[in-house]
Amino acid sequence: MMNKNQPIGVFDSGIGGLTVLKHLRKMMPNERFLYLGDTARVPYGNKSKETIRLYAQQCAGFLMAKNVKLIVVACNTVSANALDEVQDFSSVPVVGMIAPAARGALQESSNGRIGIIGTRATIGSNAYQDALRIFHTMVPTPHSQLHVTAQSCPLFVPLAEEGWQHHQAAALIAQEYLKPMIHDKVDTLIMGCTHYPLLHNLLSTTLPNVTLIDCGEYAAKISLEILTQSNNVTTTILPTHIEHTEYFITDTTPNFSVIAEEFLGYHVPQPQRVIIEPNDALPISTDIHSSEFRYG
Amino acid sequence: MMNKNQPIGVFDSGIGGLTVLKHLRKMMPNERFLYLGDTARVPYGNKSKETIRLYAQQCAGFLMAKNVKLIVVACNTVSANALDEVQDFSSVPVVGMIAPAARGALQESSNGRIGIIGTRATIGSNAYQDALRIFHTMVPTPHSQLHVTAQSCPLFVPLAEEGWQHHQAAALIAQEYLKPMIHDKVDTLIMGCTHYPLLHNLLSTTLPNVTLIDCGEYAAKISLEILTQSNNVTTTILPTHIEHTEYFITDTTPNFSVIAEEFLGYHVPQPQRVIIEPNDALPISTDIHSSEFRYG
Repeated sequence: MMNKNQPIGVFDSGIGGLTVLKHLRKMMPNERFLYLGDTARVPYGNKSKETIRLYAQQCAGFLMAKNVKLIVVACNTVSANALDEVQDFSSVPVVGMIAPAARGALQESSNGRIGIIGTRATIGSNAYQDALRIFHTMVPTPHSQLHVTAQSCPLFVPLAEEGWQHHQAAALIAQEYLKPMIHDKVDTLIMGCTHYPLLHNLLSTTLPNVTLIDCGEYAAKISLEILTQSNNVTTTILPTHIEHTEYFITDTTPNFSVIAEEFLGYHVPQPQRVIIEPNDALPISTDIHSSEFRYG
Repeated sequence: MMNKNQPIGVFDSGIGGLTVLKHLRKMMPNERFLYLGDTARVPYGNKSKETIRLYAQQCAGFLMAKNVKLIVVACNTVSANALDEVQDFSSVPVVGMIAPAARGALQESSNGRIGIIGTRATIGSNAYQDALRIFHTMVPTPHSQLHVTAQSCPLFVPLAEEGWQHHQAAALIAQEYLKPMIHDKVDTLIMGCTHYPLLHNLLSTTLPNVTLIDCGEYAAKISLEILTQSNNVTTTILPTHIEHTEYFITDTTPNFSVIAEEFLGYHVPQPQRVIIEPNDALPISTDIHSSEFRYG
């Protein structure tokens, strides 16, 4: 059940989803958000499909228990491997990263040669490859042929987290990973991991004439469309000094607020630590009742 | 209670501990081993102390339920942050990575200038720094002064896992991380993460006149000492064609056996998938009864 003044729930395996939150807030400045980062079990990118689906269900369960009106899966690995699981589990609309970005890439590309970069789990799932092929047959595009080049880039997330995007080593790593994109003459590249917008300069330097697709931007557009069409855009006007987002994390990350401020560009309050897997332990955060985030 | 023909339990957050298992098996060829890799929640290196302690307790609980005679914590992050927790929890001797390697480094160093590299959680814990200072006051060493240089190297594990140690980017990253070691004229470097022996060539090329300390080697020596002193060395002579190790992982890693063979240099059987956190879910591996690995 949606209620227009309920918040929008956003979750990610960790902090990368903040790049998506940034677009959501920009596009919907009066909405309230709950952001959940599963920092205890981050990263999801090298885990099995089965484990990703279990963790995604637990994240969605936490947000559902908080009565969100829409769930944004701000994690490409989850979107690629468990979107159906989250949709089955949730009674509100669920927006993933894959479909909006795939449609966006098809609209942006002039030559139909599209690249995708992401974690091993995202690339290995073929979710982007499949979405591009399906939308290509459905949506009128300026190109009759579609050619997809996919590459997993496991070093990009740690590089972004180290803040090394301007280091010469980062340039060499980018050149190595993106060789197939140059070889295949892609004109549009989907940044299929929510960390990658932090490497925007590195990517655009390595591929100077390629359009970079930021999933968060396209997911925010679709989210607004869904709320508008169902008449669920908030009617509240939030003053700019009011905090729009509550942050929850599953492991204490001492510098979460500092990193979040770097990602978002504005002040971020201390997150609350929560336990999201059903177990016998007591919740760590004492200001949240365990019943609120148990769903089994 | 120790019984000399029980196996030795070894655990790590993932696959890095296999470099320790290699030394254990080499030093104790007739012992049987159980290896547990918590691949569902790997890596531990960026997690909080509290979360590392919880996960370590669950790993130790799994091994205790299997009646091991000794536990080797084949993970520097756990050894640095939760060794006391594992010791309190276990009724058998527990060998960590820190003390054996710190003692080894003090014996190897000629100038008393020792470097340590590891994950953020290992370096941030100061466990190596403290152990070196304590042993320096206790053990006769050829040097009266001790100088410790510590550096966290978050990109080394993903570099090792990508198999990129011979890539030019790896050389640049190593030069960046190891600058303080050159500046401080260390003559001995503790590879304070079980993945780092895979980068041995890269490290020795970057620091050509520095002795590299492999924790696994020193932990294996101490393990054999403990078993010998308590008269718990196995009396069985295992034929070489008999499998000495059972492998358990918490997430299916499709190429676990392939990676393990690269780490160990010999054939590795398929691991069993197990759930080690107490929860309401059914065990995934049907050939293990849940009661065996629940300890709460």
